[in-house]
Amino acid sequence: MAEYVFGVDVGGTTIKMGLFDISGEVLEKWEIPTRTEDKGANILPDIGECVLKKMQQKGITKEQVSGIGIGVPGPVDGKGIVHKCANLGWGEFNVNEKLSEITGLMVKAGNDANVAALGEMWKGGGRGYSSLVMVTLGTGVGGGVIIDGQIMTGSVGAGGEIGHIHVQDDEPESCGCGNHGCLEQYASATGVVRLANRELESNTDETVLVKDSCSAKDVWDAVKTGDKVAVRVAEKFGKYLGEGLACIASVMDPEAFVIGGGVSKAGDVLIDYIEKYYMPVVFHSGRNVKFVMATLGNDAGIYGAAKLVV
Amino acid sequence: MAEYVFGVDVGGTTIKMGLFDISGEVLEKWEIPTRTEDKGANILPDIGECVLKKMQQKGITKEQVSGIGIGVPGPVDGKGIVHKCANLGWGEFNVNEKLSEITGLMVKAGNDANVAALGEMWKGGGRGYSSLVMVTLGTGVGGGVIIDGQIMTGSVGAGGEIGHIHVQDDEPESCGCGNHGCLEQYASATGVVRLANRELESNTDETVLVKDSCSAKDVWDAVKTGDKVAVRVAEKFGKYLGEGLACIASVMDPEAFVIGGGVSKAGDVLIDYIEKYYMPVVFHSGRNVKFVMATLGNDAGIYGAAKLVV
Repeated sequence: MAEYVFGVDVGGTTIKMGLFDISGEVLEKWEIPTRTEDKGANILPDIGECVLKKMQQKGITKEQVSGIGIGVPGPVDGKGIVHKCANLGWGEFNVNEKLSEITGLMVKAGNDANVAALGEMWKGGGRGYSSLVMVTLGTGVGGGVIIDGQIMTGSVGAGGEIGHIHVQDDEPESCGCGNHGCLEQYASATGVVRLANRELESNTDETVLVKDSCSAKDVWDAVKTGDKVAVRVAEKFGKYLGEGLACIASVMDPEAFVIGGGVSKAGDVLIDYIEKYYMPVVFHSGRNVKFVMATLGNDAGIYGAAKLVV
Repeated sequence: MAEYVFGVDVGGTTIKMGLFDISGEVLEKWEIPTRTEDKGANILPDIGECVLKKMQQKGITKEQVSGIGIGVPGPVDGKGIVHKCANLGWGEFNVNEKLSEITGLMVKAGNDANVAALGEMWKGGGRGYSSLVMVTLGTGVGGGVIIDGQIMTGSVGAGGEIGHIHVQDDEPESCGCGNHGCLEQYASATGVVRLANRELESNTDETVLVKDSCSAKDVWDAVKTGDKVAVRVAEKFGKYLGEGLACIASVMDPEAFVIGGGVSKAGDVLIDYIEKYYMPVVFHSGRNVKFVMATLGNDAGIYGAAKLVV
């Protein structure tokens, strides 16, 4: 009977790996570098070798391992096929089959943001919920949707792209995706800085913030002291994100939103500003949705990956 | 082995019923009035009696019936519990259990809009797709989301409330749901009329439309002749609906949108205006999503209900 499971989170520079028991207790975790040369041809062999070596070290047999779950930075369809992972150099192939051939273990791949959402549901801030939407406010805005305990993969593996909801018609700058006015342009760390710099252009109020040299953390620290400029940024952040999440809630009817990523370190003040704009516009069923903070940080990916094969 | 299935669509005035073979061919369909007196206590007994009588007439045994699927006008959770169906007078109870007790047959209930979406997927405009979003442009705007062939019920049975996406911050009138600026206030039949009346208030262009006495059909007929006022209404309709659907597509990554309801009789011109505003703002994976017309009309509900128990 299976007692162990591996969770792998593949990033552009580092591959995080974890050995878990079947209940989700992490027994060991470690990292290896991501070798992106040769179109990332070494990535899966490196992971496979690492897993097999760990099993040998620990005296774990294949029969004792339920499988390898793996999160990758790009769309993954329900069969494990990646269509393109630009950060890894990968084109189109089946991750499940490839890594399974190498290791002789069952493999299940998912998109990294979706997998992180699953991790937070299993062992993090979303524990106790089976339908939730994870919102990762980092350099960009990522997302993952879990319905009845399962990742909503989407028809081409692009489910949960919350960062690219259109929230503003008059944005002159272009988003990384090529569109204009995506949520990510305002609610990410760089987005908060963008909003602050714009406020500072025409500002006459006293403020601790300095144009072109403040971070998202500076802005949220200043919000907590009542800095007028920072508060105006927080209001805009809250409006874009609150209205965007209200739209999602009206359509998906989740139990909870889990807020993670670097910006979420600002804490509950974020949720205050989100809820201020969320509540008046969400369909009434959405008013009971809980807003909770992610708790697993960078480990959400390995937990969620492990959960894929438990 | 099961050869037959019943599909029931409960409305506020009429209950539509269909007897289907297991492949989804409708063998017979009929209607009975909805008796809403006594808090709707007669509704399920009436349906049960009708089903049993039909079986007797046709010489169908219980073993030959896979079950009864039933769509009801209100939120239904995954267990068949309705929390409130205002139009029927119903409070909270388990529809599956109640109708099953009466008939001795397996019963599965769903929200009517979600069930209609399932019907269109099975036998209507959405045939061939397994992940789709149905948008019903009627007196209101309803919706249903199908993922991998299954209804996305939502955590409290309120999944798919597309009509209550917030799309406009400055709406003075209140939506039926109590909020302001819901998609339904612009994209429904009454919404199109609202937009037209507002255009006509300050209009100086020649137009066939008359303030306070034009229908949604009048507006779309006028759009087709190039009437300037009607075209301005169509642009606004397209912007609200196109941007709203883009938001849904970015999060859910469906294969298709199925457009139904009375307003959809205007035909492909609707899709032209929707796509005009959808394409520039949707995440790139959403640009291949197909827009198709619903084809089952008022029968979508009985087809979808039948599909619940096939």
